[in-house]
Amino acid sequence: MKRPNKNLSPSFAITVGELARHLDCAFEGNGQIEIRGVSSLERAKEGDLVFLAHPKYQSLLEKSKASAAIIPSEERYERIPVLKSENPHLSFIKAVDLFYKPYHPQSGIHPTALVSPSAKIGKDAAISAFVYIGDDVEIGEKTAIFPFTAIYPRVKIGKETMIHSHVSIREGIQIGNRAIIHNGVVIGSDGFGFIQGKDRSYIKIPQVGTVIIEDEVEVGANTTIDRATLGETIIRKGAKIDNLVQVAHNVEIGPNSILAAQVGIAGSSKIGKNVILGGQVGVSDHVRIEDNVIAAAQSGVTKDIPADSMVAGSPHLDIRIWRKSRALLPQLYDLVKDIKKLKKRVEDLEKKK
Amino acid sequence: MKRPNKNLSPSFAITVGELARHLDCAFEGNGQIEIRGVSSLERAKEGDLVFLAHPKYQSLLEKSKASAAIIPSEERYERIPVLKSENPHLSFIKAVDLFYKPYHPQSGIHPTALVSPSAKIGKDAAISAFVYIGDDVEIGEKTAIFPFTAIYPRVKIGKETMIHSHVSIREGIQIGNRAIIHNGVVIGSDGFGFIQGKDRSYIKIPQVGTVIIEDEVEVGANTTIDRATLGETIIRKGAKIDNLVQVAHNVEIGPNSILAAQVGIAGSSKIGKNVILGGQVGVSDHVRIEDNVIAAAQSGVTKDIPADSMVAGSPHLDIRIWRKSRALLPQLYDLVKDIKKLKKRVEDLEKKK
Amino acid sequence: MKRPNKNLSPSFAITVGELARHLDCAFEGNGQIEIRGVSSLERAKEGDLVFLAHPKYQSLLEKSKASAAIIPSEERYERIPVLKSENPHLSFIKAVDLFYKPYHPQSGIHPTALVSPSAKIGKDAAISAFVYIGDDVEIGEKTAIFPFTAIYPRVKIGKETMIHSHVSIREGIQIGNRAIIHNGVVIGSDGFGFIQGKDRSYIKIPQVGTVIIEDEVEVGANTTIDRATLGETIIRKGAKIDNLVQVAHNVEIGPNSILAAQVGIAGSSKIGKNVILGGQVGVSDHVRIEDNVIAAAQSGVTKDIPADSMVAGSPHLDIRIWRKSRALLPQLYDLVKDIKKLKKRVEDLEKKK
Repeated sequence: MKRPNKNLSPSFAITVGELARHLDCAFEGNGQIEIRGVSSLERAKEGDLVFLAHPKYQSLLEKSKASAAIIPSEERYERIPVLKSENPHLSFIKAVDLFYKPYHPQSGIHPTALVSPSAKIGKDAAISAFVYIGDDVEIGEKTAIFPFTAIYPRVKIGKETMIHSHVSIREGIQIGNRAIIHNGVVIGSDGFGFIQGKDRSYIKIPQVGTVIIEDEVEVGANTTIDRATLGETIIRKGAKIDNLVQVAHNVEIGPNSILAAQVGIAGSSKIGKNVILGGQVGVSDHVRIEDNVIAAAQSGVTKDIPADSMVAGSPHLDIRIWRKSRALLPQLYDLVKDIKKLKKRVEDLEKKK
Repeated sequence: MKRPNKNLSPSFAITVGELARHLDCAFEGNGQIEIRGVSSLERAKEGDLVFLAHPKYQSLLEKSKASAAIIPSEERYERIPVLKSENPHLSFIKAVDLFYKPYHPQSGIHPTALVSPSAKIGKDAAISAFVYIGDDVEIGEKTAIFPFTAIYPRVKIGKETMIHSHVSIREGIQIGNRAIIHNGVVIGSDGFGFIQGKDRSYIKIPQVGTVIIEDEVEVGANTTIDRATLGETIIRKGAKIDNLVQVAHNVEIGPNSILAAQVGIAGSSKIGKNVILGGQVGVSDHVRIEDNVIAAAQSGVTKDIPADSMVAGSPHLDIRIWRKSRALLPQLYDLVKDIKKLKKRVEDLEKKK
Repeated sequence: MKRPNKNLSPSFAITVGELARHLDCAFEGNGQIEIRGVSSLERAKEGDLVFLAHPKYQSLLEKSKASAAIIPSEERYERIPVLKSENPHLSFIKAVDLFYKPYHPQSGIHPTALVSPSAKIGKDAAISAFVYIGDDVEIGEKTAIFPFTAIYPRVKIGKETMIHSHVSIREGIQIGNRAIIHNGVVIGSDGFGFIQGKDRSYIKIPQVGTVIIEDEVEVGANTTIDRATLGETIIRKGAKIDNLVQVAHNVEIGPNSILAAQVGIAGSSKIGKNVILGGQVGVSDHVRIEDNVIAAAQSGVTKDIPADSMVAGSPHLDIRIWRKSRALLPQLYDLVKDIKKLKKRVEDLEKKK
């Protein structure tokens, strides 16, 4: 078993037998076959490992040029060697990690980085070229900061966190361990709050709160998370936020909740745990979305949503009601015609009286 | 009265009496009580100042641990000392300014900044580390530019303006006084204009106009404002733009108008003064929205809107019509059933003839 | 014919006769008149060239202060000299190119740029100040990279491409020739993919694919294009993408397709050629949009769309059905009243039986 090449550039090989041992799977077929990459069923070439998530894809496996496959424990397949797993996708993910390592900057502080003397940088942290780190910042062990990231004063970042290029982290923000912050993210910009003066011009409400990003949170590229007016904007442990999402001041996102791309959440709204908001969903201010709620893409959430509900539409409705109503919308035209005809028939009946 | 600690890190104390004098308010109760911070009613701890915007929140004040409160002039409260104000929120904002100062870089040009010899930098301006300033740029007095901001040639920026990290200001753009440009904003990128050639491929229309941002405008994080094709894209005095907003080429935003997060305005549309566009509103190209219009979140504005209107829906409707229609959408299913039943009854009546 | 001043700052003059020769147009009127700029009909001043796209705008031309106009070949106009063109807009674009040159950095590698020794930089490429170029990157001839752009290892960029400030190009991405990437764009951030573990927490699916941007693609400011999970996210030749657009992992955008601002396309969807998606359109995952489709602004595309269709609404409908239904929505209230009245009348009829 040769060591994997780092940085997404695979030139690593492993036999099916070794791979089965590494993944803690049983295998059937020729354990000496060499695996040199991973792929999807459709695009696999000789030497690739694939996985079968569900027996319904077996016809794709049949046509695949892959040299081995991870299949569900209860399935059988004989044409190529197979590894058996209770969760083929999860085992495949572990295999991918063998072949590809995401690019990671070298540990240490690059000479072009500008780090305040009062900042504390943890052991084996990587501070890349052209990074700016302000006064009293703390960065944990093995955390990696990519080029052109600006960390304003008094920020605290945990360990093993990745912060990609062009991220802005404003004064006093806290980020936990093993978080991933993608390129161009802004954390801690001013909340959007004004009061109107007598001449209708706006006076800025000072935004003096902060943002807390807990452990294992992922934040997508160019997403913006505003600091609280007073208190904290909070992203709870394990929440995953996609690209170009707006999280306003004083919002709280619960643990393991998912915000798809271009979601916008207005000020002071609270999202529970295990919630899923589809792409481009908008949430009004001061709304509570309880645990396990799913909101379909482009929903407009204007009121509180109780736990375990599914909603859709703008303003949102229970998804079953919305589906029934929405399906009828194309019939509205015929409906109007129907009503006109009925009116005429009723008129006729009335005349005959 | 000790000086406030700068940079959002409060360690400042003031007595209720001194504070009342500073805010030009009357006070009742013990003027010797020391105030060390500001907070919301719900989160206040001992030593905090809070404000009561409206008597309806008095139960929250009753339970609050705050040591003093700013209340409406006409109200009374005895449990803790109170300051009386005609506009408690406005007085509270002035108090917040005493306790917290937003982080501001040191004036002067940082040695790692790259400033063209032909650029003119005003007195007491702060040009932070890793700032790029092109030829013939002019920057006014006391303006602060944060790290990693790129200012292309011939840009003019007024005085006391704040430009946060990672902002791109393209060639020839003008920004006024006391503006705040948040992190990652792009001002002056090319407008999106093409004409289709004979082979259906697109030929770029040169975008040679500019952008004018007037005084006291605030632009939220990662917002994009395109330069005009010819002429100017204009953001008028005091307009406030939230995060991730798109302002296309040749758009004009009137004074004191508010664009909430993720609003998108297509080319050449004109927005009047004191307009409010809710989150994720879309405005088609070449549309006029007159003064004082309010468009609810997620509206799609496809036609001109007269002054003083409120609209909602996509495409937009007068908000009263939209509310009535939208409220009935969940009943569409029952409506169809009703019509079927009616048809049957009319049929029966007709047969009986 | 004096040389045009570069960088959007015009101080160039040309006679109508010379201009006609340069644009390969016939002209009528005084060929000695000097043209010093370009403008729109409404804003033109003396010395400006304008164009008349269509005879219906002739009243604007009548009032215009322009000194010359490009008009359709078949039209006549006598008040000022005119150039005659089969495509006045296209000829005007060529004229604009004479007067204005977009700002372009100097060729060569700026001393503050950090370029890996293993990177290959083409002849006459411009690597501006504060640019970061990682290992094994290849950059083609005459390509310009603006300040604060981060190019991760193993990226390949073609020739005559423009990459504006603050762009993040992640490891292994490929960009073609004559592409324009505007400020703040992120190309190659991780796709948004997770599988849920037994405790409902999410496990990251490694995103080890890449992004391919073909020739003549334009990508708008702060747009994000995610890398594929496995395989490639592809933007085909000549596609034009506006600002703040989200392109998810494994998406394919066909040649000469247009994505307006704030469009979001979910994972693995395929967009054909010559497609136009209006502003804020959302496309679900695993959807196919065939060639020449037009989706109106704010559409929500949830299913495959056959070639040559126009759609609108969320979820999308054929635009004719959507228009008919949507036009009736404001009448829903009256419809319900009508049905109630009809019910009453039928009841009365039934009683009379």
